[in-house]
Amino acid sequence: MAAPRRIDVVLDSVKRLLRIGATANLLNLLQKQHPADLAQIFGSLLDTERQAVFSILVERNPRLAMETVSEMGPEPGALLLATRSAEEIARQLQELPSDDAAALIDYLPEELSREVLEMMRRRESGQVESLLEYGEQTAGRIMNPSVFALNEDLTVGESITALQNSRDVEMVFYLYVVDARNHLVGVTSLRRLLLVSPETPLKRIMTPALISARVDTDQEEVARQVASYNLLAVPVVDEENKLVGVITVDDVIDVIKDEATEDLYRLAGVSGDERIGTPPFEALRKRLPWLGVNLGTAFVAASVVALFEDTISRVTALAVFMPVVAGMGGNAAMQTLTVIVRGLALGELSWGNARKALLKETLIGLGSGLTLGVAAAGVAWATKQDPMLGLILAMAMVCNMLVATVAGTLVPLGLKALKIDPALASSVFITMFTDVVGFASFLGFATIFIRYLTP
Amino acid sequence: MAAPRRIDVVLDSVKRLLRIGATANLLNLLQKQHPADLAQIFGSLLDTERQAVFSILVERNPRLAMETVSEMGPEPGALLLATRSAEEIARQLQELPSDDAAALIDYLPEELSREVLEMMRRRESGQVESLLEYGEQTAGRIMNPSVFALNEDLTVGESITALQNSRDVEMVFYLYVVDARNHLVGVTSLRRLLLVSPETPLKRIMTPALISARVDTDQEEVARQVASYNLLAVPVVDEENKLVGVITVDDVIDVIKDEATEDLYRLAGVSGDERIGTPPFEALRKRLPWLGVNLGTAFVAASVVALFEDTISRVTALAVFMPVVAGMGGNAAMQTLTVIVRGLALGELSWGNARKALLKETLIGLGSGLTLGVAAAGVAWATKQDPMLGLILAMAMVCNMLVATVAGTLVPLGLKALKIDPALASSVFITMFTDVVGFASFLGFATIFIRYLTP
Repeated sequence: MAAPRRIDVVLDSVKRLLRIGATANLLNLLQKQHPADLAQIFGSLLDTERQAVFSILVERNPRLAMETVSEMGPEPGALLLATRSAEEIARQLQELPSDDAAALIDYLPEELSREVLEMMRRRESGQVESLLEYGEQTAGRIMNPSVFALNEDLTVGESITALQNSRDVEMVFYLYVVDARNHLVGVTSLRRLLLVSPETPLKRIMTPALISARVDTDQEEVARQVASYNLLAVPVVDEENKLVGVITVDDVIDVIKDEATEDLYRLAGVSGDERIGTPPFEALRKRLPWLGVNLGTAFVAASVVALFEDTISRVTALAVFMPVVAGMGGNAAMQTLTVIVRGLALGELSWGNARKALLKETLIGLGSGLTLGVAAAGVAWATKQDPMLGLILAMAMVCNMLVATVAGTLVPLGLKALKIDPALASSVFITMFTDVVGFASFLGFATIFIRYLTP
Repeated sequence: MAAPRRIDVVLDSVKRLLRIGATANLLNLLQKQHPADLAQIFGSLLDTERQAVFSILVERNPRLAMETVSEMGPEPGALLLATRSAEEIARQLQELPSDDAAALIDYLPEELSREVLEMMRRRESGQVESLLEYGEQTAGRIMNPSVFALNEDLTVGESITALQNSRDVEMVFYLYVVDARNHLVGVTSLRRLLLVSPETPLKRIMTPALISARVDTDQEEVARQVASYNLLAVPVVDEENKLVGVITVDDVIDVIKDEATEDLYRLAGVSGDERIGTPPFEALRKRLPWLGVNLGTAFVAASVVALFEDTISRVTALAVFMPVVAGMGGNAAMQTLTVIVRGLALGELSWGNARKALLKETLIGLGSGLTLGVAAAGVAWATKQDPMLGLILAMAMVCNMLVATVAGTLVPLGLKALKIDPALASSVFITMFTDVVGFASFLGFATIFIRYLTP
């Protein structure tokens, strides 16, 4: 970020042109940008600037304006759109493919979204509505219903003509073949059409369609299919195997990024839809419940310490090293947890190799507990001139790091078995475990061996 | 994971057939699987099983065997390959595209990798070697050097013929157009070729190639281009703008997943290349340095507590609530850190909106500190019958959560400015900050107001 990126230069120019009111120049500059870049520029503008720039752009180049809104992502995009009237939103949304329009409508304030849908219905845009009927995060919701399909009774020559006449299809990777009642029966490619003579029946060169998603398939599952089989698109069918849409690889990339963000966020207790631009009070409202739960578990750990107040009052040096034991357990647990949660998300960890993973983590817990326990004991001995304090610290660290890595493996696996997202709840449990075991073992050993400790 | 997945059923059959020595049936079953599924099955086998299954498969279907190795990912793939002789590895690697072969060779033990390259050189497989000359994580390293290009002087009809004659091109999304000296000059698509008459000169229908990567472009930058512009492939050129390769969207998906894993891992102090299958002692060796650094910072925090031993000896209840303050600061800081680090990675946070993000996090720190501080004060008052202890707890929590969110914003931004990966080092600094400030503020306030506290 040391040298200014091209996009930052454009951003500065946008701000400057807006300030001096050079609308024509501003429009000219905006129209030279890709919607994805404009989306990023919009994200860096102040709210008032963003609305002003959007107003200028939407009037002169509604398609580019709406593509930009769509690239911003559904939540910030809807926030920007919501500043316009329902009637205008309904009109402008027609510039977008229906899956993108549906995603935006979904995030509009409830009443506005109902009004917009009502207006769009009058304009007969039924596609958007029907997309919104599918569950969130399903294939049906993210698919593009404009899918190009060929009838199985066509010849190759007729297929090419059909393709030449279809102007609106944005990206044709695979050519899907359907029967007379629109059931998906096969797939072929443009390139294969070119390799045979025009009279060849399509049926002869198509491959049976083996991979497809159903409208209710989870989007994460679709993403996994596309990624592992290196596909460019997946056809989407309904319960009767009728072809109703297509999910392309660019949508899948968005899903993969969103799911990765979600996992990362959940481990830290941040709501999946919080972004840099989320307003402070909304973000606070979303973060407080997690912090509240953590406060509860912190008090559980504190109540363990309270059991040993008498011991601490006799050897106050214990209060100094007590957080070291708990903290190191927490660090070791987070390492394990991260590896396990990511392994589950990437499909690399299953019941088949869970036992092996547990053994590995047990060994790591033991190994790191011994290594760091000895190091910590040395420091305690040297600073407090009390070898016994060092020994107790080492024993407690071995216990706690062992518990940390074992719990770090078993808790997410257990949550997964209970069909609870392991990324979501694991770290709360784990922190409580490592705090409780850390305090209990260190102060417990100290209580047992108190007569050998220097007061 | 409650109902057995198809892949787990296949895994069980593979294990069973291997155990009873039914090689023909086993081979039959293996050959019906996609390489991506086989890779996952291989990952769940014991080491000895995996080597046995690989031996069977590589003998009868070397291409499928090697595609499976490649799908396993370079590190585990190379580990499996390393059990064979250099001569066999060199021979089998020719089943793979040269980018995939290069990735595997890179992870072989050094001596073996040199031998394999020596043997491949004799077979004139210079492509693999030249790929390995590009820096790690650059476009040159991950590109496929077999790129299909058309000369700008061809007509559309001649182009289609050229395409029909090229058998080896795996996926043709875009047709790149080059001049007589192989400089990249334009791009077109198969579909566009079909929309015009065969006599049309290619030059007339091509679009100037605006987006390309240089061999030394960072792979993350390439991934960002592909994702934001919704591309299926990016042409790669050398310093003289000569077309030397292509990076397809399936490679980009791998990069995106790896980078997300890396960010997630770094926040928890796990090395980017650790996987579920990494052997315990190797994993321990990789995790210890991070834990060691954390032990150091834990002692820094402990030394702060040591300053207040006298205060604690007078009011031992302080030792009970002290970890609550530090821990809650740590939780709040991790939330902020995660949002900031991910925002930087996704390009949503830049210098342009950094000030806004800081203001947001400051408000969140203040808001959550006040809310939770009051709640914690209530609990402390109720359990210890000491309102002053509650007040001190609340004040310390406000201080610490404010510091947590501000440091959680500034530390990663600062590291980014110093060109250090913010995901890597931030959480160590932040934990130290929140521990030190947590202990110092709570025990500090307690020392100031000690005369009002119940001993």
